[in-house]
Amino acid sequence: MNVPELIERKREGEVTSAEELEFLLKGFLDETIPAYQMSAWLMAVLHRGMTAQETADLTRLMMSSGEVLSLVDLPGVKVDKHSTGGVGDKISIPLAPAVASAGVTIPMISGRGLGHTGGTLDKLESIPGLSTSLDTETFRRVIREVGYSIIGANDSLAPADRKLYELRDVTGTVPSIPLITGSILSKKFAAGVDALVLDVKSGTGAFMREPEEAAELARVLVEVSGKLGKKATALVTSMDQPLGRAVGNALEIVESIEVLRGEGPPDVVELTLVLGAEMTVLGGVASDREAGRALVKEKIQSGEALAAFRRWVELQGGDPATVDDPSRLPSAPVVREIPSERTGFLAGFDTREIGLAANALGAGRARLGDPVDPSVGFVLRAKLGDRVESGRSLADVHANTDEDAARAAGRFRAAVQIAEEAVAAPALMVEPARS
Amino acid sequence: MNVPELIERKREGEVTSAEELEFLLKGFLDETIPAYQMSAWLMAVLHRGMTAQETADLTRLMMSSGEVLSLVDLPGVKVDKHSTGGVGDKISIPLAPAVASAGVTIPMISGRGLGHTGGTLDKLESIPGLSTSLDTETFRRVIREVGYSIIGANDSLAPADRKLYELRDVTGTVPSIPLITGSILSKKFAAGVDALVLDVKSGTGAFMREPEEAAELARVLVEVSGKLGKKATALVTSMDQPLGRAVGNALEIVESIEVLRGEGPPDVVELTLVLGAEMTVLGGVASDREAGRALVKEKIQSGEALAAFRRWVELQGGDPATVDDPSRLPSAPVVREIPSERTGFLAGFDTREIGLAANALGAGRARLGDPVDPSVGFVLRAKLGDRVESGRSLADVHANTDEDAARAAGRFRAAVQIAEEAVAAPALMVEPARS
Repeated sequence: MNVPELIERKREGEVTSAEELEFLLKGFLDETIPAYQMSAWLMAVLHRGMTAQETADLTRLMMSSGEVLSLVDLPGVKVDKHSTGGVGDKISIPLAPAVASAGVTIPMISGRGLGHTGGTLDKLESIPGLSTSLDTETFRRVIREVGYSIIGANDSLAPADRKLYELRDVTGTVPSIPLITGSILSKKFAAGVDALVLDVKSGTGAFMREPEEAAELARVLVEVSGKLGKKATALVTSMDQPLGRAVGNALEIVESIEVLRGEGPPDVVELTLVLGAEMTVLGGVASDREAGRALVKEKIQSGEALAAFRRWVELQGGDPATVDDPSRLPSAPVVREIPSERTGFLAGFDTREIGLAANALGAGRARLGDPVDPSVGFVLRAKLGDRVESGRSLADVHANTDEDAARAAGRFRAAVQIAEEAVAAPALMVEPARS
Repeated sequence: MNVPELIERKREGEVTSAEELEFLLKGFLDETIPAYQMSAWLMAVLHRGMTAQETADLTRLMMSSGEVLSLVDLPGVKVDKHSTGGVGDKISIPLAPAVASAGVTIPMISGRGLGHTGGTLDKLESIPGLSTSLDTETFRRVIREVGYSIIGANDSLAPADRKLYELRDVTGTVPSIPLITGSILSKKFAAGVDALVLDVKSGTGAFMREPEEAAELARVLVEVSGKLGKKATALVTSMDQPLGRAVGNALEIVESIEVLRGEGPPDVVELTLVLGAEMTVLGGVASDREAGRALVKEKIQSGEALAAFRRWVELQGGDPATVDDPSRLPSAPVVREIPSERTGFLAGFDTREIGLAANALGAGRARLGDPVDPSVGFVLRAKLGDRVESGRSLADVHANTDEDAARAAGRFRAAVQIAEEAVAAPALMVEPARS
């Protein structure tokens, strides 16, 4: 096969066959095809797109570029959940124990924060002692005992995705729906899940700002999952403001524990129930979403979900006492209010900027491998549509120094819009897609 | 400056500034910017295009990446002609001496055949002894003496173009109008010309098959030349059949000499006069195209053009006796007719396939640096619209062996369409663009 011809055909919008995709991907991985040809092909894919079949072929090839876990020895349908990332998105943390205590098996592979977004692993690791790097045997043992486990993707799962992503990151070829689909699904399905609930974010804090784009990604994720023999549901949900009130690693653990106690901010509770309902249906423990929602709610209200979380923290090496006494979590030395300069209604968030301001405090990283500070971040006191008053706090900033706090407060204030008239808060959910 | 961001901005269709283009091109040339980023940027340019100003900035940077010749010491306006390439396109060979003998100074930089097209340098080098690799001083001396010289681009002219082209060739990024424009104009203007006549080919033997695309390239070439302070005229001309009757190196020299003798096929004569008229106007030796055409015609009829060619052959080391006795040129041992299998009218040529069949005989090369056979090729006996009869020859094939001749005859026959009804021959000229 001739690489320039394959690039030219994709450039003209033609389909690349499974055999041709295999030739390209293998050649890229063993470096017989130079990166400058792969990046040109990726840019052609970005402009011309791929059919669902091409995307499924690419995903399968990426998935089988490394180890493919089989979890058939674990009971029931294995269901995972994936979010495309946002600010304050701690949903996995209360969701997994709540749905696991409803009887669904959840082998969850999570990620680290990058860019303006936080990462579930970084948040969990603010619990003293907790590890998200387990070997496969320990991963299985934890799942068998408590119904779920959350770990990071290791180097053996879908290595093609890592290598492709490194190239995409520096060649302007990240925002392509088929390439994003391949990246998400190859890792998830290599980890051995049978079904997947996808939370596709749209809005000012999402990678896909436009709901139409997010809906298209949701549709493709579900269609391609189906072609790979997996069940999937994708919801488009709002990232036009941070989820909940807490933005920052330990701060989000505190909020997650509140949700597991039957408290917590209404949007986090609602999204946990909505995604949990989908997972219980896919996992075969509820006949429909309504029954699933009730089941998950009951597991939270009964305390079973919190108990599962406590046990899980212990099984992954964390201090279970933090679950009952969150003051044992790392906390920042400086906590300051961010007073509003105007009276009016909270009308808009530059959510991405709030994520970046939290990262600048130390909550996130500029590059993979950098350390993160578990203690810092924001706790919002107002959300979209809320009335705010001049001099009253918009949020608290948790920082290491007064200078950091002042700088973060300025960025936060500049990232919110205050209007004179009341504005309606946006709907949390935009659109579901189901296979 | 941040390379991924520059790629992303071009991907979104934004303009790259002159400073940013300089940063990209310099980084690519000194290898601080990896080829995989440059190829992604080139593919984004291919899909998103460039403004005339961006293309002019890129062209200027490519031009000034190496030596820029000054020919101010030579008399008059320096005019060159460039063709985008086709099959049987030997126009430069009679054109240069005819227009030079009309008083225009022509420092011509020509190319070699590549792909299905022939190259002026390869054709000229079938004249025994003739060299197209002259140092700059000899180039000037030849021009001063006979009014023109034809040489190949050396490594010192626009080296950025060579390096970019090598990358484009293997990354599917050749057919981009701004990139083609930069490639053509950077080399020409680095050679010190003041004005340029561009022959943009369209049709089955051209790189741009569609007249609309060719017209757009013509328009951009003229507009960008103007932005670089140079005069230019671009004509779109038909490459729906080979130009003239001869396809092959020495065979095309024979046909060129016929034109200089006032004979030769009508399309070659006509294109020589049309392009010559443009060159005399740009060169300031004719007040308008009509006067220029008459002047060029007169120089051919008076024998001055042929005398200039004879003298030029001698000055560049060739045997001038071949000009009066073309039988001294290399000739093939096997010459066979290609009889038509049907009676009817010649209705279509797959011109590219005829070029490739000539190359397979040895007339062209698969890669730069391969040798070419000066003697082989085709001489057409029928052109579009002509009546052909079953058993009568469509063309003669000049080959090294009977097997080669038989194979080439089969390819030639398959590359022509014969219709029952007479069809009109296509117009030679499609559209002129003038600065």
